Amino acid sequence: MDGRLLIIGGAAGPELLVRFVELAGGRSARIVVIAAATESPEAAEAFHVGTFTELGAASVCALRLASRADANEPGTAAVLRDATGIFFTGGDQRRITTVLGGTAADSLLQELVAAGSVVLGGTSAGAAMMSATMIIGGGGPGVTAASVHTGPGLEFVPGVLIDQHFAQRGRLNRLLSAVALYPHELGLGIDEDTAILIDGDRFEVLGSGAVTIVDAGAATDIQVPPEGPIALAGALVHVLPAGHTFHLTGRRPGIGEHSHEDREPAPSARPQRVSVPAGGGGPAPSGGADRPGDL
Amino acid sequence: MDGRLLIIGGAAGPELLVRFVELAGGRSARIVVIAAATESPEAAEAFHVGTFTELGAASVCALRLASRADANEPGTAAVLRDATGIFFTGGDQRRITTVLGGTAADSLLQELVAAGSVVLGGTSAGAAMMSATMIIGGGGPGVTAASVHTGPGLEFVPGVLIDQHFAQRGRLNRLLSAVALYPHELGLGIDEDTAILIDGDRFEVLGSGAVTIVDAGAATDIQVPPEGPIALAGALVHVLPAGHTFHLTGRRPGIGEHSHEDREPAPSARPQRVSVPAGGGGPAPSGGADRPGDL
Repeated sequence: MDGRLLIIGGAAGPELLVRFVELAGGRSARIVVIAAATESPEAAEAFHVGTFTELGAASVCALRLASRADANEPGTAAVLRDATGIFFTGGDQRRITTVLGGTAADSLLQELVAAGSVVLGGTSAGAAMMSATMIIGGGGPGVTAASVHTGPGLEFVPGVLIDQHFAQRGRLNRLLSAVALYPHELGLGIDEDTAILIDGDRFEVLGSGAVTIVDAGAATDIQVPPEGPIALAGALVHVLPAGHTFHLTGRRPGIGEHSHEDREPAPSARPQRVSVPAGGGGPAPSGGADRPGDL
Repeated sequence: MDGRLLIIGGAAGPELLVRFVELAGGRSARIVVIAAATESPEAAEAFHVGTFTELGAASVCALRLASRADANEPGTAAVLRDATGIFFTGGDQRRITTVLGGTAADSLLQELVAAGSVVLGGTSAGAAMMSATMIIGGGGPGVTAASVHTGPGLEFVPGVLIDQHFAQRGRLNRLLSAVALYPHELGLGIDEDTAILIDGDRFEVLGSGAVTIVDAGAATDIQVPPEGPIALAGALVHVLPAGHTFHLTGRRPGIGEHSHEDREPAPSARPQRVSVPAGGGGPAPSGGADRPGDL
């Protein structure tokens, strides 16, 4: 996965939305808003189109995907290919997978992201669907097999489970439940007005809250009874606020390594959309490689 | 610390209250209920006296400690010395420390517990006050320095921070905040209707929920800004339901090592109250020593 993803835990404030526009090219940005997570997309479309326009993007449009037929339309592909930023709004993550999963639009999104020709953003349900495994429900007190329901996401980020509205809705129990059941998946809990910016194998935390990372791959023992509380011993937890980084494959925080403005390319220098998306024709995304000092 | 403590995360069901009576001697138990955590102790006293009586204790009385003068009364000492089990009910943990801290009753409780001549039980505020450091307030979303307020507990259990109603009130953020600030303290979050039975250096989990243990001593980096989110990397988390054990000084779970009925002495064989409490005159409490196989 070489692309750039901005994954927001819901309730994004101006800082994160400004950052999305910058990542998409600033005054050259061509942004597409997709509100497929809700049956009543009008309000989410209007809000995001209005906001991204105010923030100075060159063009912003809403792409209405109400059905799989819409997602397979040649016109849809044309709109997506022309974008420099694509943003998924909130709602029910299962609506996103039901409408998009396995369609031409899904395949094209994967291509465009892998090629580095778009930045893909998503908030709330639009964040959840980016993970290999989505949390689609659950909750209630305790760490139990019944505390979480999962389903496959669209897999823009392999090997992770993403939960959102994390601190605000007290969702650590369900994230612990999920990683106890599936310790090969790294659990990421993203607070509201907080995001991870994934660039290659590394992400940086942005926004006002924190990202809680639960690594049950480190667990020394896990016991999941059919009913009642799960036993989980030796999981690792990291709580990372803005500026901190994390390496996904190494499963290690780059705590203390704050972001530097000069690490971000100027908007005019960002990778441009390429006409042949496969094969990674775009310039290498910034910050994709391991760096010394990321410990 | 050699004594036996039953520390309950609030809302104790019959199983835990039965266990307390058994630990105090069953049909020979002489139980003292202390509702000093509340300004209106009548209801808590009546409920617990009624319940422990129904469960077959030989005698149950409420010890009303409304002031420090009460806690320094010779009559109070006499009541405590006669008990085989002493139970602190819920309310505000600061009321317990304000009334008892540094009094003759406080010193005597420490002696009686250290000598193994009583089992000390507590629920909710009565659990919090047993720890070296009490969480006395806080909450709200996020892991921040402002998310938790602490104060010294009565230190029946050194080196730990205890939070209660843990899963039910979604308190992991404040426990993480507390151990990020004070990583030398082990964080124990006890669910409702769940308890830890401390016996020497080891505890066993009892009840219907789980105990969440956060060990920030393992953290590789912690950064606490004056405001805003804390960064915490590499903390260990264990979620242990009933039957699992944990070694306090080794900070390691004995997961998979379930309790066995034959490990509990029959009620008639439990350590009896000794007339000279100092010097550990009672028989060694069961299970106090490290055992091979507790890994």
